[in-house]
Amino acid sequence: MKTANKLKIVNDPIYGFITIPNGVIFELIEHPYFQRLRRITQMGMSYLVYPGAHHTRFHHAIGAMFLMQKAVHVLRLKGVEINKEEEEALCIAILLHDMGHGPFSHAMENSIIENVSHEEISLQFMELLNKKFNNRLTLAISIFKNQHDRKFFHQLISGQLDMDRLDYLRRDSFYTGVSEGWVNSERLITMLNVHDDSLVVEEKGIYSVEKFIVARRLMYWQVYLHKTGIVAEQLLMRVLKRAKELTDQGVSLPASEALSFFLKNDITKENLTESVLDRFSKLDDYDVVAAMKSWMASEDFVLRNLSEMLINRELLKIKMKKKPISSEKIAEKRKQLSKKHNLSEAEASYFVFTGDIYNQAYRMDKDTINLLTKSGKVVDVAKASDQLNLKALSKTVVKYYLCYPKSNY
Amino acid sequence: MKTANKLKIVNDPIYGFITIPNGVIFELIEHPYFQRLRRITQMGMSYLVYPGAHHTRFHHAIGAMFLMQKAVHVLRLKGVEINKEEEEALCIAILLHDMGHGPFSHAMENSIIENVSHEEISLQFMELLNKKFNNRLTLAISIFKNQHDRKFFHQLISGQLDMDRLDYLRRDSFYTGVSEGWVNSERLITMLNVHDDSLVVEEKGIYSVEKFIVARRLMYWQVYLHKTGIVAEQLLMRVLKRAKELTDQGVSLPASEALSFFLKNDITKENLTESVLDRFSKLDDYDVVAAMKSWMASEDFVLRNLSEMLINRELLKIKMKKKPISSEKIAEKRKQLSKKHNLSEAEASYFVFTGDIYNQAYRMDKDTINLLTKSGKVVDVAKASDQLNLKALSKTVVKYYLCYPKSNY
Amino acid sequence: MKTANKLKIVNDPIYGFITIPNGVIFELIEHPYFQRLRRITQMGMSYLVYPGAHHTRFHHAIGAMFLMQKAVHVLRLKGVEINKEEEEALCIAILLHDMGHGPFSHAMENSIIENVSHEEISLQFMELLNKKFNNRLTLAISIFKNQHDRKFFHQLISGQLDMDRLDYLRRDSFYTGVSEGWVNSERLITMLNVHDDSLVVEEKGIYSVEKFIVARRLMYWQVYLHKTGIVAEQLLMRVLKRAKELTDQGVSLPASEALSFFLKNDITKENLTESVLDRFSKLDDYDVVAAMKSWMASEDFVLRNLSEMLINRELLKIKMKKKPISSEKIAEKRKQLSKKHNLSEAEASYFVFTGDIYNQAYRMDKDTINLLTKSGKVVDVAKASDQLNLKALSKTVVKYYLCYPKSNY
Amino acid sequence: MKTANKLKIVNDPIYGFITIPNGVIFELIEHPYFQRLRRITQMGMSYLVYPGAHHTRFHHAIGAMFLMQKAVHVLRLKGVEINKEEEEALCIAILLHDMGHGPFSHAMENSIIENVSHEEISLQFMELLNKKFNNRLTLAISIFKNQHDRKFFHQLISGQLDMDRLDYLRRDSFYTGVSEGWVNSERLITMLNVHDDSLVVEEKGIYSVEKFIVARRLMYWQVYLHKTGIVAEQLLMRVLKRAKELTDQGVSLPASEALSFFLKNDITKENLTESVLDRFSKLDDYDVVAAMKSWMASEDFVLRNLSEMLINRELLKIKMKKKPISSEKIAEKRKQLSKKHNLSEAEASYFVFTGDIYNQAYRMDKDTINLLTKSGKVVDVAKASDQLNLKALSKTVVKYYLCYPKSNY
Repeated sequence: MKTANKLKIVNDPIYGFITIPNGVIFELIEHPYFQRLRRITQMGMSYLVYPGAHHTRFHHAIGAMFLMQKAVHVLRLKGVEINKEEEEALCIAILLHDMGHGPFSHAMENSIIENVSHEEISLQFMELLNKKFNNRLTLAISIFKNQHDRKFFHQLISGQLDMDRLDYLRRDSFYTGVSEGWVNSERLITMLNVHDDSLVVEEKGIYSVEKFIVARRLMYWQVYLHKTGIVAEQLLMRVLKRAKELTDQGVSLPASEALSFFLKNDITKENLTESVLDRFSKLDDYDVVAAMKSWMASEDFVLRNLSEMLINRELLKIKMKKKPISSEKIAEKRKQLSKKHNLSEAEASYFVFTGDIYNQAYRMDKDTINLLTKSGKVVDVAKASDQLNLKALSKTVVKYYLCYPKSNY
Repeated sequence: MKTANKLKIVNDPIYGFITIPNGVIFELIEHPYFQRLRRITQMGMSYLVYPGAHHTRFHHAIGAMFLMQKAVHVLRLKGVEINKEEEEALCIAILLHDMGHGPFSHAMENSIIENVSHEEISLQFMELLNKKFNNRLTLAISIFKNQHDRKFFHQLISGQLDMDRLDYLRRDSFYTGVSEGWVNSERLITMLNVHDDSLVVEEKGIYSVEKFIVARRLMYWQVYLHKTGIVAEQLLMRVLKRAKELTDQGVSLPASEALSFFLKNDITKENLTESVLDRFSKLDDYDVVAAMKSWMASEDFVLRNLSEMLINRELLKIKMKKKPISSEKIAEKRKQLSKKHNLSEAEASYFVFTGDIYNQAYRMDKDTINLLTKSGKVVDVAKASDQLNLKALSKTVVKYYLCYPKSNY
Repeated sequence: MKTANKLKIVNDPIYGFITIPNGVIFELIEHPYFQRLRRITQMGMSYLVYPGAHHTRFHHAIGAMFLMQKAVHVLRLKGVEINKEEEEALCIAILLHDMGHGPFSHAMENSIIENVSHEEISLQFMELLNKKFNNRLTLAISIFKNQHDRKFFHQLISGQLDMDRLDYLRRDSFYTGVSEGWVNSERLITMLNVHDDSLVVEEKGIYSVEKFIVARRLMYWQVYLHKTGIVAEQLLMRVLKRAKELTDQGVSLPASEALSFFLKNDITKENLTESVLDRFSKLDDYDVVAAMKSWMASEDFVLRNLSEMLINRELLKIKMKKKPISSEKIAEKRKQLSKKHNLSEAEASYFVFTGDIYNQAYRMDKDTINLLTKSGKVVDVAKASDQLNLKALSKTVVKYYLCYPKSNY
Repeated sequence: MKTANKLKIVNDPIYGFITIPNGVIFELIEHPYFQRLRRITQMGMSYLVYPGAHHTRFHHAIGAMFLMQKAVHVLRLKGVEINKEEEEALCIAILLHDMGHGPFSHAMENSIIENVSHEEISLQFMELLNKKFNNRLTLAISIFKNQHDRKFFHQLISGQLDMDRLDYLRRDSFYTGVSEGWVNSERLITMLNVHDDSLVVEEKGIYSVEKFIVARRLMYWQVYLHKTGIVAEQLLMRVLKRAKELTDQGVSLPASEALSFFLKNDITKENLTESVLDRFSKLDDYDVVAAMKSWMASEDFVLRNLSEMLINRELLKIKMKKKPISSEKIAEKRKQLSKKHNLSEAEASYFVFTGDIYNQAYRMDKDTINLLTKSGKVVDVAKASDQLNLKALSKTVVKYYLCYPKSNY
């Protein structure tokens, strides 16, 4: 970040120059809580599949804020009134929307922190920062919580065509090099409008919206749910789970102070105090990788092997199926492994496991993307499409996977 | 074109350097018949809508040849045997496939030449060149005519995933700046294979194929069938039709020798002799624009006004409808115009007319795009898609338009 | 061009969406004089070398206007006051700056119109349009003529870092595919400022300016002064010169009315009346190509052969030298050709000729690019550069060429 | 990395698909020593300035190998014989050339490891791997050490136009978004040739080489030597130096096993045994960041504050000067700080220090970039350039900086 003409400017390979407004937004970005996002990769361990995908939550948050500035500009040109204070609140809300992500974005959510989503933690952070910043985040928080009258404010933050998605799809496509997932975010924004305080897309944007949905679907199957990526993410959650299990059993594991805290304590919505939040703010990818590197010398077979697999990229095999994997098959594979390495069934289950992945390219049940026709009617894009069966895309597709060690293991 | 290291190299903003093989291919490109394609715009009068779209059939043909080289390279890597002679024939066939296009690509086909497609004229040109080049085009012609045993040869020239489409979609998207239509041609080619002498796409390419079809659809509605583009193309066909009509009535119109010939003679499949072909080879965009510019001074109201509209870009209005336009409405508009300018109904029909446009994003009846599954089965992509309803995309969508003069006319 | 939200928007493959302001600018673009620029290629016959280079003066003018909008926006952000009327005038001036270009941009300037630069003709057109538009172009004209107090207004139109150059270098690099010539126009604009009513670049922009100058130099030698491009341009000027010569001798040549007028009349600054201007406005690339195509059947050896060379791209050979070509060498080659085809020496000189090309990457004598240092001093970039010897780049480099027919001619 | 058609393919946002050859190259990439490069950022802490710059040595090494494959392909087309074994050796040498980089690429070289360059460590790693891989790296090592007869082999690995530079300039420009630094690596490679076993560039490539040198210069001043980047890198070296100092004094600091080893031991060329190398192979960015995070709680004022500065991006101020900073000025600033925080002068010197940075855009003393003229002569590009004074660019430019705490510190 550098100062140019008194304006703070960030260089973005995707959008070019991004201008950081002076004032509270600049100060929020400077805050250690936000700087921490530089140490959280956007796409978890996907870089084991796509070596370019090392971009961070920090960069994504700033990119999404840039798109928000664009959206406000476009809507104003079309006569939608948005005052300075509201613009700032929208920018703050999108900037901070991902603050609650832990290491590798999603690794903790299903391993050592139970039943607390990253959105909830983001909200806690906003509340905390609101105190530190003399209530200057109050409006942003009400938008984030969808408690503001003007419904489209929240839709710009969270919806099927929000600035979050418009940035991350574009950014993830850029950094992975999966160019088919490319989304023309700026053009989509150009076609936004507001009708009855709800976000709509101009009718002529129908093909662009269709293509956006298809590109998003492609990104899911080809990138976010890439086989090898799933293995890596599952291993990451399991290594943390195992570490917590061992800690619960009284084993003392090398780990940073912040990580140790979360291994030793069960955090739920109820005990997510400010002090817990402060510890959370010290936790990032580096704690987890550093821990795994030391756990490669652990006495525990499971912890040691899982850590090695991730650090050296010697992952499990994975098979994808359209139907659930039979419990017999799993049991058999586990038995083989138990025998070979003298493991309990519980231990073997860390290396042989099944799961499902699913994706719904478009939701028709809520928050639909609506078109504004020239005659002033509002129609769900899935209904307006003359040909492309978006309804079909609203079906949830499920696939099942089976992970197990390579034969030489 | 410049000589580099004894190789002829063409600079392409899209693919970078394209190498022109020495020998017959180089000589064909040097031939005046092929050089003429430099004077045929790829997208007709679409540049009146997209000012960047001035690229030519010449450039497209060379681009498609480049993709053919890529495809041959990829298929060989996968063990498909293609000998040097076959490679050359494939390159020749794709290079010459568009040679039969007249001015503005499609303007004549439905105005002054009746019932002869550009493919047939391309074929005639190939036969003629085959004589001039000592039968060195024989294999290319048999591929072009789909008379070669190895079916995939023809599929690379003409099919739902041929090198023609892969180039023109990419190129048209590039030059119009409609980036949503962008197609990753090189990547799609990487996923081609051959099974039972038919072209197939590897299973994992399914999302890329889906996206290709959706991008193609978007290009149709947003670019090829753009409202203003339709008006321009219709006006262009009508100006030529009117010129022929007046010529038939004995009016002498300024026109180049080549254009005059086609205004004076009715060309059909039957009388498409070599001498006619040679005259055709002298006809390009420049004859038509130059003629229209002189016709702006014509005494004929219709010819004069249509020419002015195109040259000065003062086009008719156009309305799009999902249902056919009623004949009453058309009659009424024509009557108004007749009265205002003292025109016959026939004359008025040049300015008030209707028509339909249609698009079928994917055909299921023939030449389907087939996937090769890992287990070795071949499946139509429309059936393999787990979710995106490609079947729906195989429905032909029709829209109706009504053109008529602006109120100040 | 299409209407979006009541705003006219043009799709540009380079900058994305360009918004056309309503009012006089929109009307000027709609005017036939401006629409004519759609039929003038930006780079003359360079498409014979770079097949993608078919972009037009129309597109360039609109692109340069877009950059002007950017520049105004940036300068205002930095506190430079520019009112609405001035902004409009700047946009008009840049939009119309190239209106005086004839067919193929430069072909006529040194062949059939003598001693009248395209800038002068542009100015005449502006004056004429000023009458038609009720003096709404007066301010634009004073800027164009450098008669406005605020010197930087003119520098934005015409200078070593003007919007004209920033667009054409970028655009020509884009369409030729010569990516090394790529110039980051938007970024350079970001670093502009105004000091004492003169345009300056912020100090930190020094490396970008250096790179801009080097890229421009590369474009000159690699593209604008490409050997084959020079041959084509020289042939084009000679074909027109020959046509005028023959016309002067009383030969009647087929040509459009507009072209005939300029072949028959000697136009100078003195007789450049409104009626001459109106005829000029009817002249474009199409008149010239159409004429050459008919001249391929001319009885005159010179006219026929020059026309064929250009239409069929069978150009002369060209050799480049660092020293002037000796007159003996030229005489000898001419004699050979005269003998072979029974030509007079004057006729032979159409096919054997010499000339020089030169380029000065940066001028230090006037209109230098100035940097504004942090301490508020203004320094010529050539003097500020710590290392890159820009002074050396201000030397004019001359090369000499010799053109002559291929041996089989 | 995924298997496609039995070929391993890596997706690169820059070059598209990169094919990994089967055999020893694939196995080397899979080796933990090479996988470690995924945890070494290419540009150190530059991401504190350019948030997109998180790309790794792993990605760079694979990209450079891709360019090597291109270069081999181009040279063979031009008749340079390179056999399969030599190709593999070239790919191995470029792949492993950066293996010796420690955390953040350069942080250790000038802090805790003295007088051992990363090239020497790379070589040690190659020798070690050569043993593990049954001497299959012998040829690669002789090329790397410049002991092979064919001089151009080494020049492709290390020279002023080697595959290393061609990749890193392009890649760093891409990820930082500093598009002016963009280098057309593929095109430069197209113009390579070999003459007398030395690498040369074809004459017509002169402008491209010039532009390459200017782009490289720009990247130095704008990116690699960016003010804020320098501060960050200096702080990083100082935090490690302080940690070593404290360790030497007997203070026990939290650190990973690998990092502790290097804090406790003085490593020189002489004692760089295999066991030391193995420990080095366990050291990466994560050890250092994790350590700094724990050191934020250190009792030592210096270590604590330096760590905080880097982790929270609250860096020192920096001033750049053309002349060395006077020792009085430094002493004064140190005194102020000592007083304020009760520090020794030695301690204060961690926060107030000076240094110099320099860059030489082109070297004329050795390994010049040579052009091969059409007449077969070989000329140093700096002498061949008709105008751009490359000689000037061979001067070393030095700048001096002064770092000190912000006033609120």
